[in-house]
This record gives sequence, structure tokens and C-alpha cells, in this order.
Amino acid sequence: MKLTKEQAQEIKDQQSQQNKTKRVTAPELEKILYEAIPVLDHGFVRVVDYMGDDTSIVQSARVSYGKGTKKVSTDSGLIKYLMRHWHTTPFEMCEIKYHVKLPIFIARQWIRHRTANVNEYSARYSILDKEFYLPSPDNLAAQSKSNRQGRGEVLEGNQAKEVLDLLKNDAEKTYKDYEMMLNERFDGTTIDENKKGLARELARMNLTLNTYTQWYWKTDLLNLMNFLRLRADDHAQYEIRAYADTMLDTLKKWVPTTYEAFMDYRVGGTEVSAKGKLIIQKLIKGENVNSEDSGLSKREWNELMIAFGLKDKLI
Amino acid sequence: MKLTKEQAQEIKDQQSQQNKTKRVTAPELEKILYEAIPVLDHGFVRVVDYMGDDTSIVQSARVSYGKGTKKVSTDSGLIKYLMRHWHTTPFEMCEIKYHVKLPIFIARQWIRHRTANVNEYSARYSILDKEFYLPSPDNLAAQSKSNRQGRGEVLEGNQAKEVLDLLKNDAEKTYKDYEMMLNERFDGTTIDENKKGLARELARMNLTLNTYTQWYWKTDLLNLMNFLRLRADDHAQYEIRAYADTMLDTLKKWVPTTYEAFMDYRVGGTEVSAKGKLIIQKLIKGENVNSEDSGLSKREWNELMIAFGLKDKLI
Amino acid sequence: MKLTKEQAQEIKDQQSQQNKTKRVTAPELEKILYEAIPVLDHGFVRVVDYMGDDTSIVQSARVSYGKGTKKVSTDSGLIKYLMRHWHTTPFEMCEIKYHVKLPIFIARQWIRHRTANVNEYSARYSILDKEFYLPSPDNLAAQSKSNRQGRGEVLEGNQAKEVLDLLKNDAEKTYKDYEMMLNERFDGTTIDENKKGLARELARMNLTLNTYTQWYWKTDLLNLMNFLRLRADDHAQYEIRAYADTMLDTLKKWVPTTYEAFMDYRVGGTEVSAKGKLIIQKLIKGENVNSEDSGLSKREWNELMIAFGLKDKLI
Amino acid sequence: MKLTKEQAQEIKDQQSQQNKTKRVTAPELEKILYEAIPVLDHGFVRVVDYMGDDTSIVQSARVSYGKGTKKVSTDSGLIKYLMRHWHTTPFEMCEIKYHVKLPIFIARQWIRHRTANVNEYSARYSILDKEFYLPSPDNLAAQSKSNRQGRGEVLEGNQAKEVLDLLKNDAEKTYKDYEMMLNERFDGTTIDENKKGLARELARMNLTLNTYTQWYWKTDLLNLMNFLRLRADDHAQYEIRAYADTMLDTLKKWVPTTYEAFMDYRVGGTEVSAKGKLIIQKLIKGENVNSEDSGLSKREWNELMIAFGLKDKLI
Repeated sequence: MKLTKEQAQEIKDQQSQQNKTKRVTAPELEKILYEAIPVLDHGFVRVVDYMGDDTSIVQSARVSYGKGTKKVSTDSGLIKYLMRHWHTTPFEMCEIKYHVKLPIFIARQWIRHRTANVNEYSARYSILDKEFYLPSPDNLAAQSKSNRQGRGEVLEGNQAKEVLDLLKNDAEKTYKDYEMMLNERFDGTTIDENKKGLARELARMNLTLNTYTQWYWKTDLLNLMNFLRLRADDHAQYEIRAYADTMLDTLKKWVPTTYEAFMDYRVGGTEVSAKGKLIIQKLIKGENVNSEDSGLSKREWNELMIAFGLKDKLI
Repeated sequence: MKLTKEQAQEIKDQQSQQNKTKRVTAPELEKILYEAIPVLDHGFVRVVDYMGDDTSIVQSARVSYGKGTKKVSTDSGLIKYLMRHWHTTPFEMCEIKYHVKLPIFIARQWIRHRTANVNEYSARYSILDKEFYLPSPDNLAAQSKSNRQGRGEVLEGNQAKEVLDLLKNDAEKTYKDYEMMLNERFDGTTIDENKKGLARELARMNLTLNTYTQWYWKTDLLNLMNFLRLRADDHAQYEIRAYADTMLDTLKKWVPTTYEAFMDYRVGGTEVSAKGKLIIQKLIKGENVNSEDSGLSKREWNELMIAFGLKDKLI
Repeated sequence: MKLTKEQAQEIKDQQSQQNKTKRVTAPELEKILYEAIPVLDHGFVRVVDYMGDDTSIVQSARVSYGKGTKKVSTDSGLIKYLMRHWHTTPFEMCEIKYHVKLPIFIARQWIRHRTANVNEYSARYSILDKEFYLPSPDNLAAQSKSNRQGRGEVLEGNQAKEVLDLLKNDAEKTYKDYEMMLNERFDGTTIDENKKGLARELARMNLTLNTYTQWYWKTDLLNLMNFLRLRADDHAQYEIRAYADTMLDTLKKWVPTTYEAFMDYRVGGTEVSAKGKLIIQKLIKGENVNSEDSGLSKREWNELMIAFGLKDKLI
Repeated sequence: MKLTKEQAQEIKDQQSQQNKTKRVTAPELEKILYEAIPVLDHGFVRVVDYMGDDTSIVQSARVSYGKGTKKVSTDSGLIKYLMRHWHTTPFEMCEIKYHVKLPIFIARQWIRHRTANVNEYSARYSILDKEFYLPSPDNLAAQSKSNRQGRGEVLEGNQAKEVLDLLKNDAEKTYKDYEMMLNERFDGTTIDENKKGLARELARMNLTLNTYTQWYWKTDLLNLMNFLRLRADDHAQYEIRAYADTMLDTLKKWVPTTYEAFMDYRVGGTEVSAKGKLIIQKLIKGENVNSEDSGLSKREWNELMIAFGLKDKLI
């Protein structure tokens, strides 16, 4: 991640603001506000604004519960209760806005979360930065043999080098040709005074999918957690997980009580089907159960055993 | 609007907060933050939180425009340009949260705006306040003769009094019976120690639709403007317009530049159909046009004439 | 549920259609298309249109999986896999439209599901039907002592009769006064030729919340299942559950394979928190665990025990 | 657009379906159902399912209007009225599903329309087709001088050839290296038996943005029109407009009455601001007005003049 001098200054200027407000604040989040937290080789995540804190959830829930909340007495108890019972609307009452720099192929996954507001840097109007994602060697994984959507072992030796060279050279070549077509270099200088430049909205099609883009992305706390549950998960692609993990840290600084409930009930929890419940009940009673008679598919059986630590991993 | 002593104190406590933040603030909006602004006879609108200001729109738009904004140089120019050309996403980057007290029949119209977050006071858990909307005499209008969904003249004399008596007596009677069924009065005292109370989720069905409810309602700036355009309009029912008008004032305090563009391009503007454009062109050229040959329906013709001040009102 | 002669004829006419189509059809659903299935005392649910069937889910998923679906060979296996792993988007590819008649206080709960399309019969334009929901005696429950949002024992004897009388008399009185204010009876006849009628948009506020309304409600299969999971659940209010149960039947006729997976993974399944998983693991190993040392709240402990049949019910 | 023999056969099979249904059908749309209509050099649009027709809009609106529709007597009149007055919900009652093949950089614009359901062919699971978009010579436009987001003159002679060569060669080179990294050719054959293939979710990042992808895309009629209004517009990028124009034809076949109203009120219409209305009024009265005193910016003035044919084009 390289910030230009101007960009670094702009961030510093925002961070030096000292405004007074009657709104609630999240002191831990204020500390890192506007900071560009590095992710992958050239990406970052910046929290640029937020609204509400843990108490805002309680406040909204108590409107909907009115006088009816005597039994769940503390804020923390109420937040856990809401999380456990999928009373989701109070979590929509907090909002957060990020500025994110990320490779285009990850942006394409990310954008599928529709309940968010987005403004992306437009390659129709502007020239994209000359930055491409190149995986670090330990993330250069082979296709998994057992899982069509997963990664297997890491590539080694020569092949790893070959792959990295291809990625690097192709990204640089296509970017160079992008500049050539635009008849303009990234720094704004013209290449050939006697030529026109191809329209930006066309030239961009020559870039590779590991080119970095950036956007403002704003969502409410509920939908942020939906995003994180899916994208900080083991099944998510490593590159988007890197972003989700960084954002999990910002969640903790913003709404610590909600974060705790989220880790317990969503991230660390599991779902059990009706058939799966019967298996677990038998296991608790000490009855004999096996995959064949379970009524579960082989894969389902494995997933259930792994979820409760009765088996090591999916074979 | 009656606030209890406790409610008034809670508002005062929130208003006395003096927090420091690095976020942008909207000074005029801060002045009225948490204040219960009266609407109708017992309702109110309170701004309880917000995120962003006019500069947040520009900031988001400039990410999507990158270096491409030199021509629209000032913030105000850019905001007007975005509004005019329906570049809507930058307006989604600001967020506002209201606490609203309103009659149930108005809440039922309001909730049709789906792109918002809502937590309503639950009559399943709690007893509703003993407050009903009774129109003031000058809002007690007869059914319009010409428009199935509109109001005509104001009712006068005896009939007005009769209507108000019916509304008042029925609301009080049904509320009294609501307490009776609950076997509990609004103040929490039990009516008959030897009886059970009917479940709240059932008893509420006896209340009339002018009973007041309340909710937290949060939305982004774009959807707030969509709401206000429809609900601050002449065609909207007076009672919801009263809320929209009050919220227009808060919009002005929050994002004054956006407010100005909104009034010019949306509220004060008009739409002209392809056929309507041809009529206007002829009128400008001084050509003779009349309703019969226009290709417009009688009603469309009237709407067009009124929009451009060529006719006084819909007859 | 009383249908007028005209309404019954209109339904019959729709049912007698014999159109040819290249689209997929759901034969079991076709059999009950347009039929008004009774719910509560005056309500109904009618399926009035639909798009897609079980194969549409597989078809969409196979686009996103391309050649990669060899392992999950059958349609049924794939649908179960998608359901279990929350691959939700293929389920959005089917759509259904209902015509529903329901009490207003239930409509207010229902409308909180925002991801749906709705057209409600407008009391601003038209006079509402003279029909009110009155619970049957075995649904006339007292407020629960242990659960602020629940029902307890059924009311008995005199008190039940008193409650039903209040509900009936208040609904009839307020409806009669509604007609009086409108100066028009439900059958369209004028009451007093010398009087104006109050605007419909105002008069409606005098009606009680058990008055029936009706709407067209359209949603996709994913959001229908989200609705049914919450509303066909034990914690849902009986009156909305009556609708959800009826709609579950239509789900089964429409997409039988999806229905089966839905019942197994969603309706009959359970969620276990990270802490809960540790308890279950200990129980399987035969270790001693008790509520006090579990790290769970009393309530959470109970919910866990009940979910796995280790305890009868919440005390 | 090349369809494989299997794909062509699958389409034929779907088209030969002769199902009976009680649902309404759109006969003109049925004729082209499943057909792959070519767009750009390798793309297509296929209508694969639909629900409802013009009468469905009227049917839904009449529920919300109840007995109140006597004045707008015909279906066509009502549809026009709904369109003109932004009574949008009845248009949400129809649904359509497309299968679309399109270049990735266009897919990235398209996906910003959030109110739709999407399943995209996944390059995480599968190998993408070896097809890239190459503009035809008359679409190879230079960057506009006056508009940062627009196109100017067409490139000519040598430069056009150079650009096309760069686009073609870079796409082919990066695709060849994609296969190399995967260690698998598009036809499924392995390149080097002694090597592992890089994970598909990684290798895809080497592809250029003009590579074709495909998806199922489903939306309701209202949101389809919102999409078409923006994307069939002159300001839209040519490549997405090509898709929008094709889809406009399918709209006409599906709901001809709605199509007509849409063309009149949305596509062919214009918006006039409050200030703009004053100018038009003066022009009609024959008063002298000019850009300088108008209160409009230079650009706004031009847009207004062009909208009413008083000026030829934006200079």
C-alpha cells in the first residue's frame, strides 16, 4: 500500500478534526478513524464514518419493547437475547462507512451483498492506479482435488515462480497497453501529441482482474455482520477473508458487546438439522449411531461430526 | 403532545452530552438534536442521530469520479449536477435517525417506504399510550366529489361537531374496554385482582386506528428525499404531510446545499411526457394547440397546463 | 369467509383458463390456483400467480456452478446442499403471488417483511368490508406470566364471554359510526341526502384494528421461506401462524423438494452457540455438566436442553 | 455468439415444451422464450421465464383502489395514470428472468442495480469461456474532449487497427496464461501431467475485463423499467445500451400497454426544475429570456434548450 504524499496529508487532516457533538461516540473506533489499515499487498480498509454504538441497539429495542424489558435487565443481556432470537431490526440502527482499496475480482464477490451503499472509483472517468494484486507465495494454492470451489496444497518451487511471473508480466503488459490506448500515462502526461486517446470507458476493458479499484462502502450493523459471517468464514476465498478479518477488528472497537454476542452465536456457532438433532440426542444417550443408518448423506454426516469435534476434518 | 417528567428529563440528558468526535458534524442540526418537535395533536418528530453532511456527498462522488471532476468545481455545483442527473448513490452516504410518534393509520402509509430501518413500540409486549388523533376543525374535510382519493370542502356546523364527538367517544370507549380486557389500567394498576388479563397481543385489536404509536425510523438521505417528495406533496394526505413538512425543516438544517437542489429539481420541478414536450414546443413557437388535438387525455392536458401556470387548477 | 356471488364467479372464471405455455409449471399448485383457502373467521389465502419450480433452482445454480456440479448429482441433492450451506441466491429465482384477506393488526406484523411487493386495498379510496376478527374461544388466551410477549392459559367462563362481547360490540359500534361519518352505508346507499360525507381517508381512523383488509403480496421463494420460518414458528402470534401454516401447504405443492429441505434444515433444525457446542460435546462424552457452570444464562441453558429434548419445556 | 451443439439442443428442448396453465400468458413473449438473441460480438439475451402481463398490473391496482376506479375506465387508461403519477407498486407485480452473456466490465455496471436476483457463472468453480469482447471499428471511439465520461470521434486508420490488435493479443495472451496456470485447457484436457493446477479462484485474476461471463438475472417490471430508463439512455455506455435496447424489445412483447406508457412518460419525457419552469413560462408568453439572466448554469440552460428542441446539441 502506497499512499501519495497528498493522500497521506488528507488523512492526517481528517484525523486532526476535533468536533463537538451531542451524538453518542465510540471512543475506540475514533482512535483509528480514517486510518488506512493495510490488507493484501496494495489494499486497505479505512473507517471513514459511523453512527451509533451498543447503546443505540438497546435504545431502539426498548422502543419496540416499551415497558416490557424488565426481565432482561442489562444492556449486554438484552443484546445477547436479541442476537440469539434473531430480533434483527435493532442492529440495523447503527451504520458504518468504509473506504476500501481492493482487487477487482474481490470487488466482484463483495458487491453481491446488495444491502449496502456503494460509490466506486470510476474507470469510465478516470485512469485506474497502476497496482495489481500478486499473491504471496504461501497463498499460491493449487486447486483442491476434493472441493471444486476450494484450494489445496501450496504450489512449490519452480511452478510457484512461473505462476507469479505470468501474473506479474501479464498485469504489467496489459496496463502498459492500457496507457498506450489512452495515449496517456498514469502520471497524466500525453504519449503522442499527434494521436487521440481511446475513450476511458473502452480502454479499461484491457485490464486484468487483479487490478486494484476502490470504493466507499456503507452498511448497517446487521448487514455488516451478515457480510462478516460469510466472508470471515473458512469457506470464503482467502483474499476476501483478509478484508473481513480486518473489519472484524473494527467491529470490536465499535460495538464490543455486540461483537462478543456475534462471535458466540454466529461465528462460533453451528446449525443442526432436524435429522441431525436426532443423531446428537442418541449420542448423548450413549446409543450407537453410524453414518449408514443416520439418514444423512455422507457429506452431511461428516459436517455434523466435525461441528461437534467428533471428527477432525472433511476427508 | 404530553411528555412525562421522566421523558422530558431523558431528552434533556441526551441534549447535555458534550462528546468529542473526528467525524463531520452538522451544527444547525446539532442544535435541535433529540428535541421533540410537535406534529398534529399528540405526535412529534425527534432527530436522534445522523451521519455525514453535504461534504460527505461530494467526498463519495469524488471517489467515483476520481480525477474527473475539474469542471464542476464547487461542492454546490457538484451536488446540483448529481441531483439533476439522478446520480443517486452519493446521497445514500448520509444517514439520519428519527423517533416519531404518530397515529396508526398514518404509520400504515409510512411503512410502505421499505428502504428504511424501523423499530416500533410493540403493543404485543406493552400497553399503548392513551392518546388518539382528533383532527382540528379546519382539517375535517368532506370526501372530494371529483377525486376518489381526495378531500373536498371542510365540514361545517353541527356535522363537524357530530363527527368529532363520534371519533372522540369511540376512541375512549374502545380504549376503556382495552384496559378492561387487559384487566390493567394504563398506569399499571390492576382492575380486578380475581381476574386474568387478556393477552396484550390480542387486546390491542380493540383499539381504533387513530391511536398513537411510536417508532425509531432510520434511512439514508436519498430515501429520505424520496419519502419527502411523495409525502410533502399536495396529493399526500394532510396528516402525513404534517410530518413530512417538519422533516423538511430538519433536512434544511442537516444538508442545506442538498436541500436547495432538492427543492429546485424535485419538489418544485415537474415531469413532461414525450407528447407533452411537443405541446410545449408548439406553445413556445406561438402555434395554436388545444386539448382536443393534443393526443393527451383531458386530465393529462389539465395537469400539463397547471404545471406551467397556464391554468389555475384542476376542474 | 363470505365471498359475494360476483367474487365467486371471478375466481371460477380465472380457474377455467386453459392457456398454453413453454414455461415450467407446478401441477399440484395449478390445482388450487386462485382458490380462496379460509383462514381465521373471515380471512383467506389465494395463490394467484407463480414463476418457476424446483428445477428452476437447479438451473440457476448450475449457471453459477458451470461444469462444477458433477459431484452433487441429483437435483434433490443439490437443493439440499444449497439450503444447508446458505447458498441463497438460486432460491430467489422462483416467485409467488398471493391474494390475502387478514385483520389489520396482523397486516401490521406481516408488512415488516420488507423484501416483498404489496398492493393493499385502500381505505383512502374505498369503504372497507364490514368484517372483524373475533377469536374463537380456545384462542382467547390470558397474558403469559413468564413471557411478556406470550400467551398463557385460555380465559374461561364468564370472562371469555365478556371479552368476546366487548370485541364484537366495539367493532360493530365503530363500524356503524364509520358509515355515519361517511354518510354512506357499506352497500353504497346514502344515509342522509342533506349531508356531506367525511373524507374516506379520515373516516377510516375510527375502525378497530381487528377490521379485515386485503392485499396482493408477492415475494421470491427465499423470502417466502424467511417469512414462514419466523411466522410458522411457535413464538409467532397464533393469528399470523394460521396464515403461515396455510402457506406452508402451498409451498409443498409448489416446490416439494425445496419444502422437504426447508423442513429439515430450517423449521425442524436448531442453532447452537459456540458455548452451547462445548456443552453438547461434554454431554456426548458423558461428562457431568450443569446449568451453573455452563457459562450460559439460565434461559439459554433451558433453550439448549429443550432443543435437544433433554428437558420438556421452558419453566 | 457461438452456441455449442449441446447448448443449442437444450434451448430447442425448452422451446418445445407445451404445458397447460391457468396463469395468464404473454403470447408474443412466448414466441421468443428461451431464444438466444445476439448482442455485441459474443453476447446474448434470453428470456427464460416470466410472470404476469398488462392485466396483472390492473388487477393489483384495483385491489388497492377497490371500487374507486370507475373514472379511469380502461386498462390502458389506468396503466398510463399509474405510470404518470408514480404509483409504482402495481408494476412490481410482474416478474421476468433473463439469461445474459456479457463482458465482465459491463457486468460490473449492470450489477449496481441492486433490486434484482442474480446467479453468475462462477470462475471459482469453473473455467470461463474463451471469448472476449472486441469493439467493431465504428464503436472504437476516442475520449470525448468536452465530457469526462463520454466518447468523442471514432478512431481512424492505423490507430484503430493498433488498438484492436492490442485488445485482441492481450486477451489471448492472458487467457493462454490462465490455462497454463490452471494446467488445464478450456476443453478439459490437462497440459502437464506432472504439475498441479493453480486454484481456479486465483487463476481467474489473470483474465482481462472484456472476457465474457454469464448470469441469470431476474427482476420485477418496475425495476426492469428503472434499469432500461438509465441504460437505454444516450448517456449510457454503448455496450450496455446494446443489451438494454434488446431488452426493450422483449418489454414490448411482454407488456405492450406498459411499454407504450413507459416510452411516453419515461424514455421520451423530460424533467424540468422549478427555475426551468419559469423560463419555459416566459418563452410561452413570448418574453425575452437568455442564459445569463436565467438563474441557470450554462450547462443547465443548454440541457433545457435541448430538451425542448430549442437548440441542437450540447456544445
